[in-house]
Amino acid sequence: MDLESVKRYLEKGGSENESSFIDSMPPKFFETLITQGLHVDLIQPGRVICTMKVPPRLLNADNVFHGGATAMLVDLVGTTAIYSLGGSVTGVSVEINISYMDAAYADEEIEIEAKALHVGKVVAVISVELRKKKTGKIIAQGRHSKYLYVPSKM
Amino acid sequence: MDLESVKRYLEKGGSENESSFIDSMPPKFFETLITQGLHVDLIQPGRVICTMKVPPRLLNADNVFHGGATAMLVDLVGTTAIYSLGGSVTGVSVEINISYMDAAYADEEIEIEAKALHVGKVVAVISVELRKKKTGKIIAQGRHSKYLYVPSKM
Amino acid sequence: MDLESVKRYLEKGGSENESSFIDSMPPKFFETLITQGLHVDLIQPGRVICTMKVPPRLLNADNVFHGGATAMLVDLVGTTAIYSLGGSVTGVSVEINISYMDAAYADEEIEIEAKALHVGKVVAVISVELRKKKTGKIIAQGRHSKYLYVPSKM
Amino acid sequence: MDLESVKRYLEKGGSENESSFIDSMPPKFFETLITQGLHVDLIQPGRVICTMKVPPRLLNADNVFHGGATAMLVDLVGTTAIYSLGGSVTGVSVEINISYMDAAYADEEIEIEAKALHVGKVVAVISVELRKKKTGKIIAQGRHSKYLYVPSKM
Repeated sequence: MDLESVKRYLEKGGSENESSFIDSMPPKFFETLITQGLHVDLIQPGRVICTMKVPPRLLNADNVFHGGATAMLVDLVGTTAIYSLGGSVTGVSVEINISYMDAAYADEEIEIEAKALHVGKVVAVISVELRKKKTGKIIAQGRHSKYLYVPSKM
Repeated sequence: MDLESVKRYLEKGGSENESSFIDSMPPKFFETLITQGLHVDLIQPGRVICTMKVPPRLLNADNVFHGGATAMLVDLVGTTAIYSLGGSVTGVSVEINISYMDAAYADEEIEIEAKALHVGKVVAVISVELRKKKTGKIIAQGRHSKYLYVPSKM
Repeated sequence: MDLESVKRYLEKGGSENESSFIDSMPPKFFETLITQGLHVDLIQPGRVICTMKVPPRLLNADNVFHGGATAMLVDLVGTTAIYSLGGSVTGVSVEINISYMDAAYADEEIEIEAKALHVGKVVAVISVELRKKKTGKIIAQGRHSKYLYVPSKM
Repeated sequence: MDLESVKRYLEKGGSENESSFIDSMPPKFFETLITQGLHVDLIQPGRVICTMKVPPRLLNADNVFHGGATAMLVDLVGTTAIYSLGGSVTGVSVEINISYMDAAYADEEIEIEAKALHVGKVVAVISVELRKKKTGKIIAQGRHSKYLYVPSKM
């Protein structure tokens, strides 16, 4: 790609109409694009399993489930594995990492499993795995480290 | 949080109207939510710098720039650092990792810099840093490893 | 710590006698310090479990099992999970990451489990977990991404 | 490799003589194998640069600088970038990640640079890069996240 094409690729905002449409999106809409369609199958203290049918809106330029959408699920579903342990503890992300192993396509059913590996006084670590619902094949696996705090004590 | 609240948090789809609105979003809309508003400041072979004013649609539940949006930028802007080297080589993500260091708020100007650390025959590694435009303070830093291939030779 | 102490900490080579002793160590001795004492408990295609009694030589300045020794095990035992699948395929590390969750002390029995999550044509991903043998508590979990190649075809 | 060979590879302890030699190594000897020969070239608050001539003892089975030795340097030299800021704060590793980009060979001069990216009240993040001294080519880059605490207040 020449440099001008790279610039166009990143600044790909379309017509003025499209731009104002996107700019009119409500606060936190980015997250809503992921959670809409997410179904919780199992929830236990420290463990959450969800399913989702890959919607076209979450595809990337190669027509596969976006790696950034996978990262969102590692963040979001991972965090709920901590919430599921009860208490008033919340937290902020320290680190997220993801290994990508397979592609997921539009309308494919995927399963997301988050497991709390460690919940200490100040740090929690969660593992999150995305699998093809039909075959169990791993699409991606990530880990999410959070710094925990009780907001009232900050 | 009790288990029922965690379920509601993840399945937070609102009214039926809202659901059909979201389901009507065009293909790849998730990525468009990020690229709309992204401005390329500098582009050189192996290096890309963009700026963005944090839009409310990319905030998380705590009203700060979403960690998943950061991951999207590490993916997207990181990839263009490879494109900027020319050639017909594209690739797939092998691994993405991100350390989160500071919060960015609505309407704050952020700078995203991607640098190709290594472009070998089969693997490329890119570093991506998000900074506060005003102070230069690091918001997050990530690395993105890609497996490169020339599609016609697959 | 003042800057001079930091320098001393890093260059801590002791007497001349000690230095020549260390410099006389045989090639690859670093790895031998880890593998000596490692016992393979189970080996199946794509899965390897080892145990080790933490030796004093692998402790860090705080008298706990060295984080770098954990990284060595993620590298080494992770690689054998690929070897255990047979074939002549070898590979080089693309990325290794480790989350540290608990300390292990001298003479403590630890268990190291490596599982191949994905073995594709060019990339393999392995998960490696270190646990306390007695309680099963996780000490650390890591992932290891390798680029695979058949040497004769390079 | 067949399963029996994998087992032998991991349990490669040699003769009884060799085993007792290794078991007689002093406490923390693993770290000494790395620090011996490490030379501090520059030390500033938040930044440390060292050089090292790759000794045969730190090679792996393929006769290149061991990926686990790289991890040790990310841990050790990364930590000193925090020490170099003064104060009595120490810390424990939360996460270490490393991307491997090039090989280093016996007797090659390598440069290790650690930079504190962020030092907050509870979490610090350090970037560590290994380069070939002669060409500046990156061998590996990693990040090290630490949880900071003042021991007396624990």
